[in-house]
Amino acid sequence: MPLTRIQHFCVSLDGFGTGEGLSLEAPFGHAGHRLHEWMLGTRGGRQMFGQQGGTGGVDDAFVRLFAPGIGAEIMGAGKFGPPGWHEDPAWKGWWGPNPPFHTPVFVLTHHPRPPIAMKGGTTFHFIDASPAEALAAARDAANGLDVRIGGGPTVVRDFIAAGLVDHMHIVVVPVLLGRGVRLWDGLESLEKDYKVEATASPSGITHVTFTRAGL
Amino acid sequence: MPLTRIQHFCVSLDGFGTGEGLSLEAPFGHAGHRLHEWMLGTRGGRQMFGQQGGTGGVDDAFVRLFAPGIGAEIMGAGKFGPPGWHEDPAWKGWWGPNPPFHTPVFVLTHHPRPPIAMKGGTTFHFIDASPAEALAAARDAANGLDVRIGGGPTVVRDFIAAGLVDHMHIVVVPVLLGRGVRLWDGLESLEKDYKVEATASPSGITHVTFTRAGL
Repeated sequence: MPLTRIQHFCVSLDGFGTGEGLSLEAPFGHAGHRLHEWMLGTRGGRQMFGQQGGTGGVDDAFVRLFAPGIGAEIMGAGKFGPPGWHEDPAWKGWWGPNPPFHTPVFVLTHHPRPPIAMKGGTTFHFIDASPAEALAAARDAANGLDVRIGGGPTVVRDFIAAGLVDHMHIVVVPVLLGRGVRLWDGLESLEKDYKVEATASPSGITHVTFTRAGL
Repeated sequence: MPLTRIQHFCVSLDGFGTGEGLSLEAPFGHAGHRLHEWMLGTRGGRQMFGQQGGTGGVDDAFVRLFAPGIGAEIMGAGKFGPPGWHEDPAWKGWWGPNPPFHTPVFVLTHHPRPPIAMKGGTTFHFIDASPAEALAAARDAANGLDVRIGGGPTVVRDFIAAGLVDHMHIVVVPVLLGRGVRLWDGLESLEKDYKVEATASPSGITHVTFTRAGL
């Protein structure tokens, strides 16, 4: 049975999944790279950027789970580009000609456009759909593999609130952003439906995993 | 040099230090005992209630740091009693005749009253003071020992925001309260002034410690 998964979605200690003031120059607003720089400390994270070195511990183990077993991703419009990207017909995402997904990617947007096939197996599909509808489309495209909910925080929260997520890996980064988009709003008592585990890393971050009861 | 410390202040994963709907019957509102029940799993925590058994790992180690080296506590009115306690001249706190503090305790309130000496060395002093003024009074009473900021979340946040806290131990409990009083509001970039460490426990909670730079 394929799962719906969230992989290393990062939040600050005060629960923000992105900062304020998102723009082309600042994809995470005032958060800068603070939520994600831990990945570049790992061997797996560095390999994604053609670099050597890095750590091989628990952070690396979780980073390396990003791709295996995933057949499609769903992401929000706010992850695909800066505010207003839908007015630019040439915008193809932040990730250059060979994005790191290597699967179909379903972008939730109120401004659908034709699919874009990129190098390396990534195809962006643009759909105006509810979480359940999007998941059905992604499952169809995933060839029996798992579907990743890729973010941003609003989309992750919507899928969790709809009860669609089987496993999630949330990374709590020890910074206080103070403002931005909160991940946890409206999810009171979520822990009742999941087994929750926490693993602190020597790097300072904590990996919190939620596994749906009965899985 | 005596320190100003916070000991095992508990917050939910979504950052609430207490719930909604505080009352005599529900000191933490809808949170119930969820934020604090981990303490009763430890040997040290059980001893406080005259019970035996319990764990002896990292949770217990942190629980046992509650008293040693502390010469006084500062707490908010909301920790001392339920809403409206100041209208009851007989109210002496939640903790019975022998409270677990065993030091002077300064209760911040807009309704000061004469001090109350309890069994076991606890004396409650009621003062209407700023954080800095309260800390000066507590230091005078602490005989050269450290001062504990005891909560609730609003008071803890006020002392942190005023730059008065040297070391704090925050316990992140893997539940989502959804509502209540947030600890982290208004503390953007706090991590710049502290060394932050995270230690996950097999019990599921994470101990996050902040040690002021240069200490």
